[in-house]
Amino acid sequence: MGWYLMRSSRAKKIAVGCPGVDAVVISNGVSPFLDPLFRYLTEQTSGTFEGSFAVVSKDGSLDIVTSPLEETTAKKGSGNVHVYEKREERDSLLSGLLKGCGRIGICGRSVTYNASEYIRKIGGAELVDVSSEISGITAIKDAKEISDIRKAAAISSKTASRIPEMLRSGMTEKELAKMIDLGMVSDGGAGNAFETICAFGPNSAEPHHHPSDRKIKKGNAALFDFGSKYGMYCSDLTRTVFFGEPEEILERAYEVVLTAKNAGMTELYDGAPAKNADLIARDIIDDSEFKGMFIHSFGHGMGMNIHESPAVSSRSDDVLKKGMVVSAEPGIYIPGIGGIRIEDSVLITKNGFEELTEFDEGFTVI
Amino acid sequence: MGWYLMRSSRAKKIAVGCPGVDAVVISNGVSPFLDPLFRYLTEQTSGTFEGSFAVVSKDGSLDIVTSPLEETTAKKGSGNVHVYEKREERDSLLSGLLKGCGRIGICGRSVTYNASEYIRKIGGAELVDVSSEISGITAIKDAKEISDIRKAAAISSKTASRIPEMLRSGMTEKELAKMIDLGMVSDGGAGNAFETICAFGPNSAEPHHHPSDRKIKKGNAALFDFGSKYGMYCSDLTRTVFFGEPEEILERAYEVVLTAKNAGMTELYDGAPAKNADLIARDIIDDSEFKGMFIHSFGHGMGMNIHESPAVSSRSDDVLKKGMVVSAEPGIYIPGIGGIRIEDSVLITKNGFEELTEFDEGFTVI
Repeated sequence: MGWYLMRSSRAKKIAVGCPGVDAVVISNGVSPFLDPLFRYLTEQTSGTFEGSFAVVSKDGSLDIVTSPLEETTAKKGSGNVHVYEKREERDSLLSGLLKGCGRIGICGRSVTYNASEYIRKIGGAELVDVSSEISGITAIKDAKEISDIRKAAAISSKTASRIPEMLRSGMTEKELAKMIDLGMVSDGGAGNAFETICAFGPNSAEPHHHPSDRKIKKGNAALFDFGSKYGMYCSDLTRTVFFGEPEEILERAYEVVLTAKNAGMTELYDGAPAKNADLIARDIIDDSEFKGMFIHSFGHGMGMNIHESPAVSSRSDDVLKKGMVVSAEPGIYIPGIGGIRIEDSVLITKNGFEELTEFDEGFTVI
Repeated sequence: MGWYLMRSSRAKKIAVGCPGVDAVVISNGVSPFLDPLFRYLTEQTSGTFEGSFAVVSKDGSLDIVTSPLEETTAKKGSGNVHVYEKREERDSLLSGLLKGCGRIGICGRSVTYNASEYIRKIGGAELVDVSSEISGITAIKDAKEISDIRKAAAISSKTASRIPEMLRSGMTEKELAKMIDLGMVSDGGAGNAFETICAFGPNSAEPHHHPSDRKIKKGNAALFDFGSKYGMYCSDLTRTVFFGEPEEILERAYEVVLTAKNAGMTELYDGAPAKNADLIARDIIDDSEFKGMFIHSFGHGMGMNIHESPAVSSRSDDVLKKGMVVSAEPGIYIPGIGGIRIEDSVLITKNGFEELTEFDEGFTVI
């Protein structure tokens, strides 16, 4: 019984957190438009569930509408499983589950336009975007989720610890990225949380640089930004090291980024406005010779998605809460010369934070 | 000049293929809801482009609206790049580009509900779902795309060739999946096209089985379904081998699946109704002792998405065309005993097809 209650607690949270609607429908699209909310609700770690639906009713019950292809898998997860063979059966299953609903909640950030039109038609009801309510709920991770993110972060840290010995003269960005990707899987990861960034020299001034055939040269910054998944959950870690003594400007930039990161992180605690960390870090960078060169936010939430609520940016209205996991990643980007970014994945706790990823943050010349 | 024309030809195809609208807007969402159409149009292989927009005008011109974070990368790709710092600047850039439009095309299968509402508001125009038109266009791959898929398929085949030597007594599904994933990256792949399926014994009766801690036993079927990416493009390959002599029923099922696959593939050629391959293969399976046990479609298109147009199913209205890449993958699933699936990635040619993946299809006992 305890097990049963635990298994339906996520649907209950959604029902309670979206009081203005009679039901919430999550439509799992076709790859790559699979909605992590479907996994969150069903607690599935298997199957694809393309074209399946999860319906959360006002009382917190969860119903899954899926095809025979996923039936066996579906029954291992949470929710009452309804199987359709033909489209008309799916239509009537869904309209049965939504009978009497006047307002149906959808997650406007993740449902496709076509799926929303379908839900509107089948439900015969008004659609209400409950994205904000849902992301406020899923931003706070439960114990199982934190455990998975912790494992994902440990894998990334383990791989990171081997990067200094991976770097060797003449190596290309692509080669390093491949070694990191292989390393994460060897270390127990479930694949990349996102495409690994490796950037050498001037390429590191491009925050989302895609690994190229550029070879590392003496004095280059080597920036690597990567994260393993564990189960369905992500981690995120960036470091910038130097392949031989760099130009002095890069050493100065490194110190400013590190100071900004540490200052920003003092604003990471339960109840803190999320924008504070960004504002403090940005002030430090903008008061330095690198004014205007911190061209992204201080951080972002992560979970099944690598980018999710809360936004840790200067414009954020979010408030940090215990159980959220965010990145702390200020950076300075000097066009034509190079960029510095230092990033950890951080769990918000009652009185502060806990860094989940680890790697020496000191200025490192290899 | 030739180069310029080549680079804008994809936007031109979209403009010509969607005659009923004044512009087509592709909204690239936030990971994992990044729209491959954005990559298709910009021919980008770098950057993330979260929250960026691509606007195709009636004359086939392409405009990109993106943030400073992606500016450097954007300028390496196709399209006129417009950079916004603040949301209001993005709004006015987009409304400028959409000025005078009465009907704006969106891809309803990939755009989120919220992005569609935003485009409707900013464009002040009627939205028209042009998903079908666009997927009809992108289903036919150009030379660059075929080259990338060919490379992805070659990597999958190379890894597959090593699987018989990877399999050893007591190995778990998870261990094999990890070796396959590592193998694909070692062989030059850009990561998994989808999560690798490894299923031993009765688990192979579940088409989308997630690798578990189950160990392989004598007489088990070992089904593996995986694909590497190369660049942004996918490949897909499934084989079922046997770890020691299996029950006779599995050997009979194997022969039926192989016969069904070969028969279905005779219906793969330029101009063939896509449903024919499915119908022929299904007839063969349903005429055998395994009636009703082929519980999915014969195949699916692939490209940047692992599942895309055309649908090679009994209900499909699609027509196969030269340049399409589809999977050919009949299967038989016997609950409690095991499943058999044999799959290749196939390029449709003028007079037939070309198998892009390869691995011995004969009944194999290891």
